[in-house]
Amino acid sequence: MPRRPFNRQEHIYRNDAFAELVKDGIRFFNGTPVLSLPPEERFAGTGVYAIYYTGKSKLYAKYAELNRLSYGYPIYVGKAVPKGWRQARTSHIETDQSTELHHRLREHSKSIGHSSNLKPTDFMCRFVIFEGDGSDMISTVEAALIKITRPLWNVAVDGFGNHDPGSGRYEQARSDWDVLHPGRPWAQKCKGVSAKPADITTRISAHLDTLGGTTV
Amino acid sequence: MPRRPFNRQEHIYRNDAFAELVKDGIRFFNGTPVLSLPPEERFAGTGVYAIYYTGKSKLYAKYAELNRLSYGYPIYVGKAVPKGWRQARTSHIETDQSTELHHRLREHSKSIGHSSNLKPTDFMCRFVIFEGDGSDMISTVEAALIKITRPLWNVAVDGFGNHDPGSGRYEQARSDWDVLHPGRPWAQKCKGVSAKPADITTRISAHLDTLGGTTV
Repeated sequence: MPRRPFNRQEHIYRNDAFAELVKDGIRFFNGTPVLSLPPEERFAGTGVYAIYYTGKSKLYAKYAELNRLSYGYPIYVGKAVPKGWRQARTSHIETDQSTELHHRLREHSKSIGHSSNLKPTDFMCRFVIFEGDGSDMISTVEAALIKITRPLWNVAVDGFGNHDPGSGRYEQARSDWDVLHPGRPWAQKCKGVSAKPADITTRISAHLDTLGGTTV
Repeated sequence: MPRRPFNRQEHIYRNDAFAELVKDGIRFFNGTPVLSLPPEERFAGTGVYAIYYTGKSKLYAKYAELNRLSYGYPIYVGKAVPKGWRQARTSHIETDQSTELHHRLREHSKSIGHSSNLKPTDFMCRFVIFEGDGSDMISTVEAALIKITRPLWNVAVDGFGNHDPGSGRYEQARSDWDVLHPGRPWAQKCKGVSAKPADITTRISAHLDTLGGTTV
């Protein structure tokens, strides 16, 4: 077969409808009820969630200001996708029955509860469930939400979403989040050289200064 | 504020346009030129790629049959997203200049080249570049492609996309892929208990039996 010369243009996908669709998903997200962390009721479903800080910690005071009129600025955004989804080992039926989303919110609440200086009642959450074919949209909406709202614990402070690294791996450093909010039992075992608290709080101030001023 | 009772329905996002859009992306993907692995020309961009097996290995003979008329069944599907993308640390401009996609294809070619029983010339590849806002679509299209084509090295054989776990972590097992196709220098150092070759090939046959018979 004669070879055509390489033409990068032939490989670029363009579709403006996609950006509109993501915006529609985000508008829907921002219209869902805001609930306690974790939501009292256990529910089935996978999807995208946001966690909002409502407490009086000086470090995070900017969030009280940002969210004065509506919950627009989460401190953390995440997704819950059932195990095996990426490898297509899971059918839609299983996806829809998974309680992974509620489970993740409960885990986050536990992380906060373990810490010496935060409490779950100072947080609220919001989430959207994606079912069937819609579950393909989970990563996209999560990424778009992070890009738009630049949540502190996603963008400037590492480690909130971490799990126990497991035995034999505690040589790693405690994450930024665990340095600021010590208490998770497994994080206490991590022995590596962590960031200094002063450096992390400087980074936090710098990041919070960049938020707000534009409509979300 | 009086609390509304929890209503799961209020949290479910529905939009049929999304499934259509993903299908459009996949149709575009399946219409892009098929190139050697790695493509000769270095190009900028991030996106989704598929790798096709065209050799004569008995183990993978089913792929010759599946792809007789067109490249419809990849043996592996992956994505290339620039570093920092998930944390929104990267702007669109940087995304578009990254050569991560070409780099990933080159790495895969090297993995194959290291193995004792495969060669890069027995593979072809195809890819789509997503630019600007479109980059949010990368994970979605990758997931949908995996779901539809169920590539052997994504779904039934672990490890092709793995990287060197790094010093201090060689206690882990050699992956299925490295058991079947030994040669990657770092994989040779892994000391854990791997799956038995016979068990992996049984799994391969079972998986390949499920492919084909439907239009992709």
